[in-house]
Amino acid sequence: MSVVQLFRAAKAASSNLARANTNLKNSALEQIALELENSIPHILAANALDLTSAQENGVSVGLQDRLKLDANRIGSLAAALRLVINLPDPIGQNLEGMTLPNGLKLQQIRVPFGVVGVIYEARPNVTVDIAALALKSGNAVLLRGGSAAENTNRVLVELIQAGLRTAGLPSDAVQTVDPFGREGAVEMMQARGLIDVLIPRGSAQLIQTVVTESKVPVIETGDGVVHMFIDESADLAKAIPMIVNSKVQRPSVCNALETLLVHESISAIALPKIAAELEAKGVTIHGCEKTLKLISGVAATDADWSTEYYSLDLSVKVVADLDQALAHISKFSTRHTESIVTEDQSNAERFLQEVDAAVVMVNASTRFTDGSEFGFGAEVGISTQKLHARGPMGLRELTSSKWLVRGNGQVRD
Amino acid sequence: MSVVQLFRAAKAASSNLARANTNLKNSALEQIALELENSIPHILAANALDLTSAQENGVSVGLQDRLKLDANRIGSLAAALRLVINLPDPIGQNLEGMTLPNGLKLQQIRVPFGVVGVIYEARPNVTVDIAALALKSGNAVLLRGGSAAENTNRVLVELIQAGLRTAGLPSDAVQTVDPFGREGAVEMMQARGLIDVLIPRGSAQLIQTVVTESKVPVIETGDGVVHMFIDESADLAKAIPMIVNSKVQRPSVCNALETLLVHESISAIALPKIAAELEAKGVTIHGCEKTLKLISGVAATDADWSTEYYSLDLSVKVVADLDQALAHISKFSTRHTESIVTEDQSNAERFLQEVDAAVVMVNASTRFTDGSEFGFGAEVGISTQKLHARGPMGLRELTSSKWLVRGNGQVRD
Repeated sequence: MSVVQLFRAAKAASSNLARANTNLKNSALEQIALELENSIPHILAANALDLTSAQENGVSVGLQDRLKLDANRIGSLAAALRLVINLPDPIGQNLEGMTLPNGLKLQQIRVPFGVVGVIYEARPNVTVDIAALALKSGNAVLLRGGSAAENTNRVLVELIQAGLRTAGLPSDAVQTVDPFGREGAVEMMQARGLIDVLIPRGSAQLIQTVVTESKVPVIETGDGVVHMFIDESADLAKAIPMIVNSKVQRPSVCNALETLLVHESISAIALPKIAAELEAKGVTIHGCEKTLKLISGVAATDADWSTEYYSLDLSVKVVADLDQALAHISKFSTRHTESIVTEDQSNAERFLQEVDAAVVMVNASTRFTDGSEFGFGAEVGISTQKLHARGPMGLRELTSSKWLVRGNGQVRD
Repeated sequence: MSVVQLFRAAKAASSNLARANTNLKNSALEQIALELENSIPHILAANALDLTSAQENGVSVGLQDRLKLDANRIGSLAAALRLVINLPDPIGQNLEGMTLPNGLKLQQIRVPFGVVGVIYEARPNVTVDIAALALKSGNAVLLRGGSAAENTNRVLVELIQAGLRTAGLPSDAVQTVDPFGREGAVEMMQARGLIDVLIPRGSAQLIQTVVTESKVPVIETGDGVVHMFIDESADLAKAIPMIVNSKVQRPSVCNALETLLVHESISAIALPKIAAELEAKGVTIHGCEKTLKLISGVAATDADWSTEYYSLDLSVKVVADLDQALAHISKFSTRHTESIVTEDQSNAERFLQEVDAAVVMVNASTRFTDGSEFGFGAEVGISTQKLHARGPMGLRELTSSKWLVRGNGQVRD
């Protein structure tokens, strides 16, 4: 089968999926969960091949860990499928309804996109999460999962297809283009008319390539140069755990903290306490001049303010006031997540109002920007663009709408 | 000023617009309406220059008519502004709200895009309609209106800017890139990060160029190969006026009927009556073989089924049943508007469910797919894609969203 034939098969399957009722879709998700649970040795054998290649290719220990499956992790994949079963079906929901003066009845309902394409990197759990969300929202899905996880993803997709067949849905609804290598991804970007939306999820470079080259509409997911501003009125007993959690709990992800801004008037008291906690966790501070008069660290370069470290590094800047914090964020934010720590209600509301980002927080760890945390079951990615979806994308973000007009012979004057 | 400086000025103005309250935005719209009403001779003088060029360049009478303003039409532009004043302000609306088990309060609110770019052709009323919708939804807007209307649009934008200044809003919020010629449009397509969304409105060629070349997210507006299916149970007393209205009332627009499908079992009775009415209005029928056994016309070619005529031409095909009608529509639809004429409730519902288009109708003229008819005051265009907006785009379709998260020190486990 050519890659375009594979796209056409997905499109054909998508009409079937769009008409599938909630019970049928849930039954398919349950069958897929059973397939995973009943095929643990088979999945692990494929995963072992990918892990061996990763070791031979000198892939980092962190990436090897993201690639690795075990019986527990496969159990979590099945559990994630059952979480999606329990979410309400978005398809057919009424979005708007009105009767025009001429008697025409208008109804706007939620419908699936049709065919969703996702290009991602080396994380087998993403394969299952995305297939689950796509199927529940009535979409067919084309996956390009990256060569490092190719064996694991091939088996996972085979098991998903087996589950679909058992439930009586077309197995073409979930397909991988991995056998076509890079060409598969390039063809996906050209397939306007066959793929309704393309979602890149992975490195900044991958996302930028898709955003600039795709002829299919793209939802940009994104890099996070995430800021937290410690205001003059911040309660340090709350602030310090939030800073540590935002930076340290999982530094390799997009919602981890990268730049800490501290109000000058509390910097002499706050920074030494913050630094003591961070240093104990192994964090290296890249400080501005004022910061380095108060605590030790390396001097921040201009590039640091726009760097997403993905590591235990943190840029720290002392700012004169909320205005200066807002100006810094406006200049360096990637519009992902921004948080203020403050006990001043009016500063909190001003921050929420004026910061232009997908998620704006008051007194919360930036790590909460996440589909599972938001109650979406899983996430397709976190949109940092403003078109269609913004922030964590769950079922609702994989849908479009259509207008139904019911008349009795109306014509236009 | 370079074109990129102009984009930056729009972006700077957009923060101001995003914070403007409803009264301030409405007061600006009223000032713009007054500027138009007080400047009729000035506008007409500029419009006369464009009309003279159009005549010299041999532009069609139809296009000249779309270009032409007079005192009445300027009055309609002011009236359209006041219609938008009376629409509810979408900005700040709550879209979603929930409290997580950990106590975090999540709120999703409607926010402006920021900077909207619109590329369109030779219709001065579009300049005012789009500026009105963009401003009311808190957006700055960059306009590329086409060289044929350049003088008229220059004056209209000057008057809009004067109205903004009088109301105390930045005049950079509405700007034209017309002085930069084609380069202005090319730069808009490259301005990712400065322009949040680009909307092309005009010929199929213009739209395809923007869709395939833009690095800024695009909302595709569209061509309409619009179908009407006359079912076996159709009431001809209703059907014939709907067919005539859909085809004849304004053949040059995207919601005009292009292909009529007729159920075989009523074709012998229906087609002669339909043809008589259409011929009286000057419509040329491009018929399939079965059609031409019942009425006169020219033989339809393969190309006719995917042609948007923009003229008094109509493709007509006899189909065996609803299944064949659905298959034809699925193959040739541009996903704009599709209508069924039927008295059979289950066929009506099946058509509404299965046809994949922005607007699907039962017993209504296809001419109703229109922002004004839908009660949106005006429209930015009619989206035929599935991402972000589908169908007529009004205020709501010019907005994005943002998540606000309010906590009291929560950290993630």
